[in-house]
Amino acid sequence: MTTPEYAQELRTLLFQGENDIRRDLCAELPEATLAEALTGLSPQSVWEMLSLMQPWKRAAVFGYFNLDFQVFLTENINKDELAHLLTEMSADERVDLFKRLPEEAQESVFPLLAKAEREDIRKLSSYDENMAGSVMTSEYVTLTPDLTVTQSLEKLRRQWPGKETIYYAYVIGEGRRFLGFVSLRKLILAKPSAYVGDIMKAEAIYIRASDPREKAAELIAKYDLIALPVINGGDALVGIITHDDALDVVTEEATEDMLRMASTDAEEYENSSILQSIRLRGPWLTLNLGTAMLSSLTVSFFQDTISQYVILAALMPIIAGLGGNAGTQTLAVTVRGIALGKIPVGRGRKVILQEAGVGLMNGAIIGLLVAVIALFGFNKPWLGLIMLMAMICNLIIAGLIGSAIPLALKSLKLDPALGSSVFITAATDISGFFVFLSLATLMMPLLR
Amino acid sequence: MTTPEYAQELRTLLFQGENDIRRDLCAELPEATLAEALTGLSPQSVWEMLSLMQPWKRAAVFGYFNLDFQVFLTENINKDELAHLLTEMSADERVDLFKRLPEEAQESVFPLLAKAEREDIRKLSSYDENMAGSVMTSEYVTLTPDLTVTQSLEKLRRQWPGKETIYYAYVIGEGRRFLGFVSLRKLILAKPSAYVGDIMKAEAIYIRASDPREKAAELIAKYDLIALPVINGGDALVGIITHDDALDVVTEEATEDMLRMASTDAEEYENSSILQSIRLRGPWLTLNLGTAMLSSLTVSFFQDTISQYVILAALMPIIAGLGGNAGTQTLAVTVRGIALGKIPVGRGRKVILQEAGVGLMNGAIIGLLVAVIALFGFNKPWLGLIMLMAMICNLIIAGLIGSAIPLALKSLKLDPALGSSVFITAATDISGFFVFLSLATLMMPLLR
Repeated sequence: MTTPEYAQELRTLLFQGENDIRRDLCAELPEATLAEALTGLSPQSVWEMLSLMQPWKRAAVFGYFNLDFQVFLTENINKDELAHLLTEMSADERVDLFKRLPEEAQESVFPLLAKAEREDIRKLSSYDENMAGSVMTSEYVTLTPDLTVTQSLEKLRRQWPGKETIYYAYVIGEGRRFLGFVSLRKLILAKPSAYVGDIMKAEAIYIRASDPREKAAELIAKYDLIALPVINGGDALVGIITHDDALDVVTEEATEDMLRMASTDAEEYENSSILQSIRLRGPWLTLNLGTAMLSSLTVSFFQDTISQYVILAALMPIIAGLGGNAGTQTLAVTVRGIALGKIPVGRGRKVILQEAGVGLMNGAIIGLLVAVIALFGFNKPWLGLIMLMAMICNLIIAGLIGSAIPLALKSLKLDPALGSSVFITAATDISGFFVFLSLATLMMPLLR
Repeated sequence: MTTPEYAQELRTLLFQGENDIRRDLCAELPEATLAEALTGLSPQSVWEMLSLMQPWKRAAVFGYFNLDFQVFLTENINKDELAHLLTEMSADERVDLFKRLPEEAQESVFPLLAKAEREDIRKLSSYDENMAGSVMTSEYVTLTPDLTVTQSLEKLRRQWPGKETIYYAYVIGEGRRFLGFVSLRKLILAKPSAYVGDIMKAEAIYIRASDPREKAAELIAKYDLIALPVINGGDALVGIITHDDALDVVTEEATEDMLRMASTDAEEYENSSILQSIRLRGPWLTLNLGTAMLSSLTVSFFQDTISQYVILAALMPIIAGLGGNAGTQTLAVTVRGIALGKIPVGRGRKVILQEAGVGLMNGAIIGLLVAVIALFGFNKPWLGLIMLMAMICNLIIAGLIGSAIPLALKSLKLDPALGSSVFITAATDISGFFVFLSLATLMMPLLR
């Protein structure tokens, strides 16, 4: 097995071996392995190696490179070679690359493609990148209900070489209307003279091209599908989404959620230079500066109180720190719950109340701990009582806001994870300081 | 298509329809849909509906319930019925359920199972839940190199009904030694008289049963596999992992990372009562109380300084808030980078330096903003200078520690995401307060 650690040795073999060995390696090794070994090398070296491969394999290896590297490599070939490469690529990878090419390259290569590929690109590129349509491929086999099993198998055999998935065939009627599917398994077990219309599965799972791509991944995960048919507004079959693309979608969505929750963006991975990181995180930190100034303003109202009893300033980080972390816990549970579909529409209120309850209990536990320390450690019972009350209030607020923010973003059709960490720390800081310092001001006669 | 919104209507149909309609629905609907409609109903209702299904379909629907519900349902059937159900279930789901049964149920039902199933349970249950072995199934077709294509197809046809994946068959030698695989596609296109040994793919991707399960998901994603063969220490084939299980692993691992990063645990989803949430989050909050007391102690060293210039207390939240959020950004990028394999072993130092660089730049930008506000808004140039220096230091520290914590946890073979939010806020709070208040103490003559 070839694992990432061998990539370096593989490169040596590929570039120092004899031509026969190189050709054999290119023919035998999996496409993903070859792509990994070639990634990051100079365009000359990459093209030299790609030229040793069969056209279909070359296109497959090329499709495994990340898009930036693909675009970079295309700058070193002429438009005929580019057209040839695009023709050999799988339909979904072809359109992804095409959309990223500079406009002039698009214009010069488009006329060189066959009519089928041109129409394919037009069709697949018409969907927004968050839509199911953007991850579908047009490479699948269609059958009609009037075909026999023998005719169907014949058609499958003929069309196999270029198709991404041949383990399901899709049955369509007039105007490509989607009727159902037949698995290869069923076709092989069925009587050769049976009709597709009689053995197909009509109660099939499908998705609309304009639905969100996460939904496609959900359906594939839920029903354990190898591929999911995609239909348009007129119920016509326009493509399929395969299980490997669903895996990519799930991975990308999880990355997006995690980074957005931390107030930055998944783009960081595509091009992770220092400048890129600053560009993506800077605006959120600037917004954070604004919210932190609000916290600061809150504290500044209580300067009199603090100057009378400076220990309050030293205790502020305990209130703010616990509130922030409890809020982050709630946030993560809620964001992930929404992503996994565990919080159905209309259940939001229940989640918020439950989180407030958790905040109340945890606030009481931690607050009591603090109160006990204040009482026995420092002999300051009133200070302990203030900390207890402030802790309970702040952890209830952390629960309420930590769950309400993502649910509100969701109902506004925004990403529930968007910049959540900035908002939650602002909310818990401001409310925590306000409650703690207000109580201290009210009870000042008892504290001194 | 049946979507979650229809579950309620489907229940009505299932429980109020006539027996013929109910039987038809049970036969026609996908297993996942039926399982969804039945989840949460009383055991009597669930078993009433399951009894209308064919044994294989009953077991398949049962396998879609979550494990808690499965265990709960088994309490309402006798041991013969349980043995029958276990026999019909797929091998991986069977062992998952078996491991969760109460000990007495295990002991009473085990002798009732056939020898093959008993051995299967022993084999599959011997792996830790984080190992690839724990997600594999024993349901696949094996061939030997000396079989012809005709004989192979005959064997495939015979073994199909019970096998999870029939699109790949695995080739084994003496002692079940793993030799390679043949796809169904290849078998159907090959000459009927050809030998398996000549058409099989020997350069196959595989995994060891003791490898981490994430690695299985990675390989399946990278090579776009429908199934991945699993071998033991002696190179013998012991199982396969299918694409749908890889999707589950990726989803679960992302959930685990996100929640651990926020200092709680993925267990919250399995049994999300208020008490469960308190049990999981409480210990982290208690640890956080400890770290927050260290921040508090840091501030308390500077009580003299603060009492001389109380505005410092109001400015502390700005330093702490920005540091915490910048640290969280770094943390999320690093944790996700590790999970996606974007940070290879030995590149850790480079990542930490890059993050420190981002911290320096963002610290300078935000710090200058603050300094300008202090200068022109409040005419306090020295205070602005202190804020600028403290902001730069704190954001560099946030970058260093936010990346170093997950990398250190990783090299200690712990989960890189474990409790990270508690550690990062502690580090940025303590260092931020220390730098800010030290500078203020040193420059006090200029401030007053």
